[in-house]
Amino acid sequence: MSRILVIKIGGNIVDNPAASRRFLSAFAALPEDKILVHGGGKIATEIAEKLGVPTQMVDGRRITDAPMLDVVTMVYGGLVNKKTVAQLQALQCNAIGLTGADAGVIRANKRPVGTIDYGFAGDIENVNAPQILALLQQKLTPVIAPLTFDAHGQLLNTNADTMASAIATALARQGAEVELVYCFEKKGVLHDPADDDSVIAHINAENYAQLKATGIVSKGMIPKLDNAFAALAQGVAQVRIVHADSISAQTGTTLTL
Amino acid sequence: MSRILVIKIGGNIVDNPAASRRFLSAFAALPEDKILVHGGGKIATEIAEKLGVPTQMVDGRRITDAPMLDVVTMVYGGLVNKKTVAQLQALQCNAIGLTGADAGVIRANKRPVGTIDYGFAGDIENVNAPQILALLQQKLTPVIAPLTFDAHGQLLNTNADTMASAIATALARQGAEVELVYCFEKKGVLHDPADDDSVIAHINAENYAQLKATGIVSKGMIPKLDNAFAALAQGVAQVRIVHADSISAQTGTTLTL
Repeated sequence: MSRILVIKIGGNIVDNPAASRRFLSAFAALPEDKILVHGGGKIATEIAEKLGVPTQMVDGRRITDAPMLDVVTMVYGGLVNKKTVAQLQALQCNAIGLTGADAGVIRANKRPVGTIDYGFAGDIENVNAPQILALLQQKLTPVIAPLTFDAHGQLLNTNADTMASAIATALARQGAEVELVYCFEKKGVLHDPADDDSVIAHINAENYAQLKATGIVSKGMIPKLDNAFAALAQGVAQVRIVHADSISAQTGTTLTL
Repeated sequence: MSRILVIKIGGNIVDNPAASRRFLSAFAALPEDKILVHGGGKIATEIAEKLGVPTQMVDGRRITDAPMLDVVTMVYGGLVNKKTVAQLQALQCNAIGLTGADAGVIRANKRPVGTIDYGFAGDIENVNAPQILALLQQKLTPVIAPLTFDAHGQLLNTNADTMASAIATALARQGAEVELVYCFEKKGVLHDPADDDSVIAHINAENYAQLKATGIVSKGMIPKLDNAFAALAQGVAQVRIVHADSISAQTGTTLTL
């Protein structure tokens, strides 16, 4: 089985038309079998505001009530996903836009209500890796929006980082050699957040613990790296965290166990 | 090659949750290979209004300027398409939502500006029937939103009736036995618009000319029937115009050459 790249592109890139165009040109040119998972960006928040749907966040996580679910379905599943697909088609990349519901590729469960009710948020239950492989075998490039569905046909808002990691893991479990790449607006994981060039070239499980303990890695980066190490522990060959302008080069931060 | 149903569901059904649920249950249960093409409904107009995007219509056709294109991309390609896919998945129908851009299935050209500038409206140039057949062979059920794309990666708003007819025709050209079914909120083509039970059981090319001349068929029904006869002339085996509650029975109006 050939090598597969699972590439996640962050909301800050999605929100920036010039950065997004640069990224998509580089993505389209990658010769490997590849999958793009995109975040939503701030457009959902802006459109929600115009529609009079209040945005509620707890600890940086969106609370998805029914009107907000409609907004993210429109923005992530429609606007962002379809514009991305059409742009990739023009770049000769045979993209196919999917949510988890399409072809049943990613099924989830509505997050149980604990101290916080996240609303229509999905925790991934199953990735249909054979179906994704069948699409890749047709020379299609899946472009996946951060939405899943449950057994009742309910759409659910789902974290794009987690989706990328779950997809990569499920494909690795089928025997594929999978590289998971997180693209964002920085050059990698930084020693010093104020110095854009202080990229940590390599992190393994051991020095990751140290980086967390010393506070060099903190906040938003921790769930991303936790996801990355979980993917490595489950058979993903390599994880890279890179600038969206550098996906084709061996740059950024490489993670291994 | 087996029989394929291409079923178009009108906006009035899409707008009505109970009617839509009934339709989707019957659709999911159809044993044939099948494709659903859905209209947009009034939701796009409602959401456009809330977003402050004015709806401009000329002769019942929407003028799609850039902000309205974003709205229909969100509503048709996102909200309506993904909710439909998730509901079908819960009904054990392995649906996959597509616009024309996805897997490059339906390419169009931006309508040339004549006396009227329709904006980002697409006139279909090519249906990639082999790609649609490949998805059907994977036991997937395409659910198609009324959006296409052009060679520049521009999304385009496209009439759903025309898309259904073009898809049916392209599949027939590949040798498939195709039935095209237009589902709406009436029992078929009516002799008397005031009498819901006055269904004309059969129309052929000859009495169609007569029905038009005498004004029995008029206005909104004419483009639908013109599309239908164009599809028959190009090899589609049968066209039916039926109530959305009756897709599985041989009811409504059947059209043949």
